[in-house]
Parts: sequence; structure tokens; C-alpha cells
Amino acid sequence: MKAVFFDMNETLLNLSVLKKQFDKHFEDKYVLKYWFTKLLHNSTVMGIVGEYKNFGELAEAALENLFYENSKALSQETKSEILGAFKKLPAYDDVRPALELLKENDVRAIAVSNSSLAMIEEQLSNAGIIELFDAWYSVDAVSRYKPFNDIYQYAAQQASLHVRDIAMVATHDWDLFGAKKAGLTTAYISRKKELFHPLYSKADYYDSNLSELLLQII
Amino acid sequence: MKAVFFDMNETLLNLSVLKKQFDKHFEDKYVLKYWFTKLLHNSTVMGIVGEYKNFGELAEAALENLFYENSKALSQETKSEILGAFKKLPAYDDVRPALELLKENDVRAIAVSNSSLAMIEEQLSNAGIIELFDAWYSVDAVSRYKPFNDIYQYAAQQASLHVRDIAMVATHDWDLFGAKKAGLTTAYISRKKELFHPLYSKADYYDSNLSELLLQII
Repeated sequence: MKAVFFDMNETLLNLSVLKKQFDKHFEDKYVLKYWFTKLLHNSTVMGIVGEYKNFGELAEAALENLFYENSKALSQETKSEILGAFKKLPAYDDVRPALELLKENDVRAIAVSNSSLAMIEEQLSNAGIIELFDAWYSVDAVSRYKPFNDIYQYAAQQASLHVRDIAMVATHDWDLFGAKKAGLTTAYISRKKELFHPLYSKADYYDSNLSELLLQII
Repeated sequence: MKAVFFDMNETLLNLSVLKKQFDKHFEDKYVLKYWFTKLLHNSTVMGIVGEYKNFGELAEAALENLFYENSKALSQETKSEILGAFKKLPAYDDVRPALELLKENDVRAIAVSNSSLAMIEEQLSNAGIIELFDAWYSVDAVSRYKPFNDIYQYAAQQASLHVRDIAMVATHDWDLFGAKKAGLTTAYISRKKELFHPLYSKADYYDSNLSELLLQII
């Protein structure tokens, strides 16, 4: 394997810290999951009808809807606070050692995300791991979200790699489903209690520790 | 307008009665919305990667995941109870008079749903409104869910209608977004407190009463 593509939100970065922000406004523990799932559905709908708005715009629209549904006002300050926290997610503890393991083995680390390039750079910088990445690509370049195959193929081309030399790492079964269809090897990192969708293509590798997962791949 | 296409779940049929079933097992009020939104995301993912499983199978898989996430056992009995309730959703009070209004005006009423044909027939029969429909079509025929344009075009062809003579009625902004792209007139029926997605194409008509909405169209 010459390179590993990493999904970012939830895979490398701990989305659950956003929960504190949501807890300030909502009691329901499912609100964060609902917001993020709706955001993902919005992103697939955009691709299906052939339009595109960037992930930040979609995240903001989904947030506005969430507050509206709950008859709560969403001030500019609260919006900035929540979306700002999204840019400052910490990396999971196992991320740095795993990325260093790749370096030692001359395997490239590449971030491939639904977020914009600017957002990817902010997130990786804030998490203190940007220097461990060889490259990063945003779906902005292809104007279609994961799991459309465009982004996996685009990132492979840009990095001058054949898909057979790339493993995609994500904690989202649907991201791996798309990567698999695009010809990549796939590796699932478990980050929370959730079933890998029984009707999606299985991943090639599974683990709940990132270094252990990468050791299986390389 | 020669025909009105109706979405079914949430649009004609009251999904909130499913809430009683979910309330038996979960405390969070967002669990039903989370389950349904995840199910919708699953359905779009399938189309994006070029595979297909019917809506009942996807609904069941999403239910299994929900119980697993909460470390709860899902017995065959509970599963049948919840999915059985899904087949017995009541029609909203404004549905029958609205369908009768169409009959009086010689406008065809056609159900167009993500559900299978068998499920559509069960749902419409159980809701006591099947005799008011001229036809019904399932995405099963095209193996791609809404809002892919296939189903809107297929249903129009099957009914020997030009898309300019059809209005799509739904309470889902994404369904209307797809129908609009396919060339249909679109009409949004508000069923719960929710924002029409500000980044989706606007609907041609809006109302919170179905007859009032149809009077705008015909």
C-alpha cells in the first residue's frame, strides 16, 4: 500500500466534543446525531440533483433548521460558537501514533474530506496533526460529496496513485462503500457503538485502534 | 394540471403515530427522526453507489442499528410490531377531502413512493384511501430512490403524462427538489415545524392544508 486516504470528521477528529455545544441548547442526546445525519442526507441530495453548495453552508442550514424545529432563536453568536467548535475538534488519541507509523513505513497520509480545503487546513492545524499529512483534498474540487466516486478517483489522480495502491480509512460505512466501488481497499475504524450497515459492501479490514488497523493494511 | 403525484410517508400518512412504538423503547424524542433520516441517507447512498435494496429491508437494517447503538436487544416480535405499525399509518384528516376534490375536477391522483408496490397497497388500504387513487408506482421499478429523477419520469411515462401536466405533492423538500429537476410542478405541504431547505429549489406552491394546496394547483 502506497497511501492511506483518511476521512476526517468522526474518523480522525472527535465530533463528540461538539456535543457540549449542543447540550447548551438541547436536552435530547440524539440531537447531534440527528443534525449530522440530516447534514449528510442533504449532501447526498445535492449530488443526486446535480447541484452543489459547500459543506459549511450545508452545516449552517441544517443548524438553522434544528433551532427552528425547536422554536429556538439562533443568534449569530451561537451559530459562530457551534460552527467554530466544528473547526476545533481534537484528534483521537490514537491518531498521532498511527500517522507516525505510516511515516516510518513510507506510506503517504492523505486527508480526503467533504469539508472545504480551507476547513480541512483549519481542522488539521487546530488538531495539531497537519504536519503529518502529505496532502489533502476536498470534494469542492469535484462538486459532489462522498460516496459519489468522483472524489476518490480525483484524489488518486492528483496524488499520481493507482487505486489498487490506496486504502481508505473511515468510521462511516457509506464512505467505505463508495471507496470500495471506486476500487480502493477499505478499512473501518470503529469510533462509537454502531452497526456496519449489513447491506453495504463489507470493509476489507476492521479495528477499533488506528495503529492496529494500519498494521493490518501495510 | 392532469395529475397529482403524492408522496406517502409523512405527506399523506401520519408517521408520528410510529412514535408510540419508539417511545416504548427509547426516551429521546429525536430517536424517530434520527431513524427516519438515517434510513433516507441509506437510501440515497444505495443509489449513489449503484446498488439497490428495497425500502423495507433498509428500514429493518436501520432499526437493528438503532437498537444496537442503544445496547438493546431487538426481538423478532418488537421488530414486527414497529414495522407493522409503519404499514398501518393513518391518513391525515385533510387527505380524503383533498383526494375527493381532485376526483371532482378530473385530476388523477397517483401515489409515488420509496416503498415497494406491496407496501404502498397495504398502506393505502389500511389508511382507507386506496379507492381514491388512480395508480401507484414504487421506486422498485427503477431501483433508485427519490430524489433521483428516474422515478418521476418513470411514473409519468407509465401514466402517459407529460411532466408539465403533473404536480408533485410532498412534505419533503428533497423530494420536491428532485421532482422539480425532473420538470414537474411542485407543491409543499407543511406537516411539522421544519424549514424548507434554503439551498434547495423553492417549491411552486406551499400550504399547510392539502385541499388549499390543491386548489392553488388545479
